[in-house]
Amino acid sequence: MARVVVDVMLKPEILDPQGEAITGACGRLGFAGINGVRQGKRFEVDVEGEPDEERLEEIRNMAGTLLANPVIEDFEVRVE
Amino acid sequence: MARVVVDVMLKPEILDPQGEAITGACGRLGFAGINGVRQGKRFEVDVEGEPDEERLEEIRNMAGTLLANPVIEDFEVRVE
Repeated sequence: MARVVVDVMLKPEILDPQGEAITGACGRLGFAGINGVRQGKRFEVDVEGEPDEERLEEIRNMAGTLLANPVIEDFEVRVE
Repeated sequence: MARVVVDVMLKPEILDPQGEAITGACGRLGFAGINGVRQGKRFEVDVEGEPDEERLEEIRNMAGTLLANPVIEDFEVRVE
């Protein structure tokens, strides 16, 4: 069994109010030197068998359908 | 400026209903060979200066305070 990780982040041009709230909280709580935070999602997918290119293409397909909204989010699939 | 990534995942012993819902949906939508999915969060933190060990320790401190709930979540900090 292999573990494939799918990282989903808002596209850079999409506003991220959660990330901005965290950035603001860092300043107020005294964590200095933090210029910005963006929040996204991480999925750990346990797949059967070897994660070859064909299998990864299936996972990319699944990620674009189920895990991410490709209109506003980018995603990246990698074996871990 | 450096980018530090903080991955936050539920501890393995904590139930993840969102992940289970996704696993179920994979089956129903015909994405075969997926044994399990766990959902977590990914934060991209833009920090000033070089991310040396001292800086990373500050980020770990911030992550444990602001980004993760250490009672139910594990987190990992890495430079990307």
